[in-house]
Amino acid sequence: MKITILGTGTVGQTVAAKLRQLGYEVNLGTRNPEETSARTENNPMTGQSFVEWHKQYPEVKLKKNADAVKGADLIVNATQGGASISVLSAIGNYQLRGKVLLDLANPLDFSKGMPPTLSVCNTHSLAEQIQEKFPDLKVVKALNTMSASIMVNPSSINGVHTVFVSGNDAEAKKSVIDLLKSMGWDKKDIIDLGDISTARGTEMLLPVWLRLWGTLGHVNFNFHIQRN
Amino acid sequence: MKITILGTGTVGQTVAAKLRQLGYEVNLGTRNPEETSARTENNPMTGQSFVEWHKQYPEVKLKKNADAVKGADLIVNATQGGASISVLSAIGNYQLRGKVLLDLANPLDFSKGMPPTLSVCNTHSLAEQIQEKFPDLKVVKALNTMSASIMVNPSSINGVHTVFVSGNDAEAKKSVIDLLKSMGWDKKDIIDLGDISTARGTEMLLPVWLRLWGTLGHVNFNFHIQRN
Repeated sequence: MKITILGTGTVGQTVAAKLRQLGYEVNLGTRNPEETSARTENNPMTGQSFVEWHKQYPEVKLKKNADAVKGADLIVNATQGGASISVLSAIGNYQLRGKVLLDLANPLDFSKGMPPTLSVCNTHSLAEQIQEKFPDLKVVKALNTMSASIMVNPSSINGVHTVFVSGNDAEAKKSVIDLLKSMGWDKKDIIDLGDISTARGTEMLLPVWLRLWGTLGHVNFNFHIQRN
Repeated sequence: MKITILGTGTVGQTVAAKLRQLGYEVNLGTRNPEETSARTENNPMTGQSFVEWHKQYPEVKLKKNADAVKGADLIVNATQGGASISVLSAIGNYQLRGKVLLDLANPLDFSKGMPPTLSVCNTHSLAEQIQEKFPDLKVVKALNTMSASIMVNPSSINGVHTVFVSGNDAEAKKSVIDLLKSMGWDKKDIIDLGDISTARGTEMLLPVWLRLWGTLGHVNFNFHIQRN
């Protein structure tokens, strides 16, 4: 299975590394591969630069976004929420048609100070915006409610905790759920909320997530839906 | 300790019954006590009418809102979010000054169909609106992220789960946290998120809560912040 990850930040690197470790063929998409592959500044979230990270995973091919998605069975949107639509638009609906997009992004708006607000919420969501703009793409929202290290290593948090899934296409959701299982998620901890409009609910978890980060002083936590 | 609950629906009845059982002196506020005390229609959420409920708790005094808050040490806002500001305005800032308000309400807007959206969110919250309109009231948001039966009986859900607290006044938060403990909440499951603006985060949990109700088919669940 060929997986393309759009976005070369902390989330993109973390997910790419995990999927490569699991044996998938992984392409990493960026707007400008030359610029990205020259990034030597330290990322405080990962403790290393892109160059250092890429040395550990040389099999992960860094390509221009449009080239990276060619032949991909599944695309992971790990771009910043504010950039997701423009990145996908530059690739174009034709290249994206029929593909599954696992959307990890959140529509965080940093323009009003910290903590960020959401640029879209309540009556809409980023996932729905992507689905509307690219109707032939099969958008599945998942994993956007936790830090990158937990996405790919759920057992890093003690006890059970939840990952939510939203999407219109049942087969696309099944592909994503299979991928989640391969990353270590237990079936009982995966909650399928329904169609893509339910992503409003999970994107709207971010405001409390951001405040919990402040209160707890770290991001090693996740939501769990406790029930009998 | 004298506690006044504003709102005579499912949440108001459930919280009033629990606080009475715990030995508090409880007043129940409504706009029109005659009308409320004549309500014989069945409440599908509780399985009984207001009249039947009140027969079980005759010590809970039903009063006009402004009369009910007189002498109260703590007020619980269990009105519908869309009515909260007008109910409090009818009581008036003078009667409310210096009191602690435990705000359970959510700004649900049913005008756009189901599931409801939020009438205020992202850059504001109902709790902040109340605090701004009544600056001498000490607003503490808590318990708004779960069904009424869990609010007053956390052990009805197996395992640990979380209640969030937001508010500007440290002493008022302490009063509410003590009340939560008396209702069965364990200290380690109470997360103080910070000032009243953090209520944006907890009110914004409602959209996913509403969708979980649909997905799970019941409301016997609660959020837990799983962490090491």
